[in-house]
Amino acid sequence: MVRSAAQLMRRKGVSATGMREIVVDADAPRGSLQHYFPGGKEELVGEALRWMGAVAARRVRRHVERLDPKTPSALLTALVDDWRVDLTREGFTAGCPLVAAAADAASTSEHIRGVLVEAFDGWQVPMTNALVELGVPAERAPALAMVVISALEGAIVIARIRGDLAPLDALADELGPVLDASAGPRRRGTPRGS
Amino acid sequence: MVRSAAQLMRRKGVSATGMREIVVDADAPRGSLQHYFPGGKEELVGEALRWMGAVAARRVRRHVERLDPKTPSALLTALVDDWRVDLTREGFTAGCPLVAAAADAASTSEHIRGVLVEAFDGWQVPMTNALVELGVPAERAPALAMVVISALEGAIVIARIRGDLAPLDALADELGPVLDASAGPRRRGTPRGS
Repeated sequence: MVRSAAQLMRRKGVSATGMREIVVDADAPRGSLQHYFPGGKEELVGEALRWMGAVAARRVRRHVERLDPKTPSALLTALVDDWRVDLTREGFTAGCPLVAAAADAASTSEHIRGVLVEAFDGWQVPMTNALVELGVPAERAPALAMVVISALEGAIVIARIRGDLAPLDALADELGPVLDASAGPRRRGTPRGS
Repeated sequence: MVRSAAQLMRRKGVSATGMREIVVDADAPRGSLQHYFPGGKEELVGEALRWMGAVAARRVRRHVERLDPKTPSALLTALVDDWRVDLTREGFTAGCPLVAAAADAASTSEHIRGVLVEAFDGWQVPMTNALVELGVPAERAPALAMVVISALEGAIVIARIRGDLAPLDALADELGPVLDASAGPRRRGTPRGS
């Protein structure tokens, strides 16, 4: 049910996702929702967001382990590739559930806003650690991690609207060299277009 | 009514914004909505998104005229400052209506998705022209404009969730020098942290 809630929210936001629809989509027995989520929709939505936040954090750690070459731009490309695959597979009909919930539930539910803070922090911390591991100075890594996450979220929104991957391509092309340049002289190339 | 619709959508998305609520918020006579927007909610939402897209495009052009110094990073700072003021004034309760509509209406209404494509294109074109005017090479300007818009949209979402301006600060600090560096040797500084 948590997975179904997240998938439905990715498509049409929190407000338009009905509880009954989640139960049907999850092929769950009637009454199970009340049993597992006595707090109702708010609790289920919160769990779905926690789960998606954990997935995002895990992806970063998994990519860093497997990266070749071990550069910040390769990490960015790996994260962008995950979304290239996802958007293409879903026919550009589904975005990030964290953004969806931020747009239509963060102002009306303090519970959901709290979960979103946790989810984004829980994504920024492994992203920061990953950048440091890949050579980015510790004092710049938190801000660069924030920029990467912001730009990725925005690019997903615009890619979804346009129905093409150009915003993700632009992100990988333009931010990759910036991240590598920040990772110290040995990894720094000349700026593009010079 | 268009303004009221945009303001309500900024807070809680398209799905949760009711037509009656818009009429009340706009202090408009009953029946006026049906008169001006015979296409109903979809038509009114579309008009609100067109209007906000035009505002975003106009802001870029207005800032470029008044910039001092005339650098890409100064343009970025001016755009970020608009949102710093907006988020602070609204107590972090309202984001960008384009993102809100993308999150909860783009997959269910082809009309709204079409308006969103126009709105983002209508924002990217003046942003691209502005960057070129400020010295960014024409072949890189469209991608950098896309990255700026993506990162700005994502940073607004995360700032709103966190209730602080850190994502916007990170964006201005980290992307500003990148934009200036792209604007040719005379304006290019050394990378930060070197």
